[in-house]
Amino acid sequence: MKGDEADHFTAALAAAARRVEQRLDALLAIHPQRGEIARPERLLAAMRHGVLNGGKRFRPFLVLESAALFGAEPAAAMDVAAALECIHCYSLVHDDLPAMDDDDLRRGRPTVHRAYDEATAILAGDALLTLAFDIVAAVELPAERRVALVSMLARAAGLGGMAGGQMLDLAAERDAPDEAGIIRLQAMKTGALIRFACEAGPVIAGASGEHRERLAAFGEAIGLAFQLADDLLDLTASAETMGKATGKDAAAGKATLAALHGPDWTRRQLAGLVAQARELLAPYGDGAALLSAAARFVADRRS
Amino acid sequence: MKGDEADHFTAALAAAARRVEQRLDALLAIHPQRGEIARPERLLAAMRHGVLNGGKRFRPFLVLESAALFGAEPAAAMDVAAALECIHCYSLVHDDLPAMDDDDLRRGRPTVHRAYDEATAILAGDALLTLAFDIVAAVELPAERRVALVSMLARAAGLGGMAGGQMLDLAAERDAPDEAGIIRLQAMKTGALIRFACEAGPVIAGASGEHRERLAAFGEAIGLAFQLADDLLDLTASAETMGKATGKDAAAGKATLAALHGPDWTRRQLAGLVAQARELLAPYGDGAALLSAAARFVADRRS
Repeated sequence: MKGDEADHFTAALAAAARRVEQRLDALLAIHPQRGEIARPERLLAAMRHGVLNGGKRFRPFLVLESAALFGAEPAAAMDVAAALECIHCYSLVHDDLPAMDDDDLRRGRPTVHRAYDEATAILAGDALLTLAFDIVAAVELPAERRVALVSMLARAAGLGGMAGGQMLDLAAERDAPDEAGIIRLQAMKTGALIRFACEAGPVIAGASGEHRERLAAFGEAIGLAFQLADDLLDLTASAETMGKATGKDAAAGKATLAALHGPDWTRRQLAGLVAQARELLAPYGDGAALLSAAARFVADRRS
Repeated sequence: MKGDEADHFTAALAAAARRVEQRLDALLAIHPQRGEIARPERLLAAMRHGVLNGGKRFRPFLVLESAALFGAEPAAAMDVAAALECIHCYSLVHDDLPAMDDDDLRRGRPTVHRAYDEATAILAGDALLTLAFDIVAAVELPAERRVALVSMLARAAGLGGMAGGQMLDLAAERDAPDEAGIIRLQAMKTGALIRFACEAGPVIAGASGEHRERLAAFGEAIGLAFQLADDLLDLTASAETMGKATGKDAAAGKATLAALHGPDWTRRQLAGLVAQARELLAPYGDGAALLSAAARFVADRRS
């Protein structure tokens, strides 16, 4: 990414992250909402631990920017962005559990089941997932759009999306998938939420189906780039430290496209995906500058 | 319950359970829905194991009957009923996990984490919870009603409802709550979904707020009766087998209203709640006969 574009993007991402954090903080307040009986302190504290952790908020950023592109009401976009982040964070809380990845630390802090206990972490994840739909159902938008967003989010997050992808990922540790299998796994596990983030914008704004398809395609391209960059980082970081081209995933027996085709192929693919993603935004001109920069950020990231 | 009323009710409950099972079977088909990428076999199988288990489907029955009372479209009511059952079943799958109640059997079959593994059970619960919102968002009803149902269901199931109640229940094992605490815990853990089941009917049918309030109050009364009957069963079954009035919950250090006040008080309370619940249905005459019988069933049940 060129210096100016990178600086502008980094500042915009950080500013959005602060606003998202504020909104999540308000949504996770102790005061019960209409229809709720009470918000138990310990469960709420565990949910807050899992969410208010200084994340980059990249998915919410995509929602906010794709919505702004079509002139959507910022407050409505913010709530959809916050709901999506609740889903992303619930998946991390459950992923970190001993029966899953068994991680003790996330972003340098104890994971939820280490800071609290396993049962609390399971319930905190469940409650964050549930809260996401509560938030989307309450967004200040016409009911048709709210219901479309609930449906899109459920399908991106569930059996046929993220949760299904996590299942395929567990299976891939035992039985390495072929190239088509890897692509499907990643489209579900990481791609579906990123695609949702981009497609949500035109839906929030009530833009036409053509815009929706275009932004969904943009989301697919950067979702794929996101995963390739991840795999490449893993591959090259390990190559540097271990002196050979086998990374953590390769060591764990996980097949990735980067491991399959090597770093040069991966870098060419990444460049192609960034070009394709930016091309999809061409009709929107300068208004899409930050989204366009996001595509570069995804491919260039170093952590 | 008088013989005729009981027979009629039992037959209606069994017939509804069969139809609910069929609908759940169809909703949990292998074919992906629009917006889904693929439905991984193992995850789907675990979800089906957790749901298609010959349950009584009491909560779905309440949805179907409360909807029929106001002339709602049966297919729409069936989908809301199936979604609610997905939520109930997800909570059982997660509740059975080693970190929670650590149960090996449910309805005489291995629990999901015993039949598959813990990671699969966690993901199957997550995916069932997500599917519930997918189903409600797709019900053939005006968008306003769908969004109202999503919101009601999220608040009944989440932090301020069932999930919060499960958290309070875990805490109650360490630190016995007072009477108000027990009532709140139970209103959240078991009451919220039963209340939702009854209130959903008028919402599906687009009936007025007055009917909605009346059915919600009916749901609260039978939810309370459901829990009291459970506690009473536990108290008296244990008293019979152990020769003293301390049941499984009491032994586990769990406070219940039945344990606090004794079986006679509990039976009087139950009778009072049934009378109150049936009184709330008086304006609907014979059309509410099955719902009215349900109130008796809840209080009289022996298992």
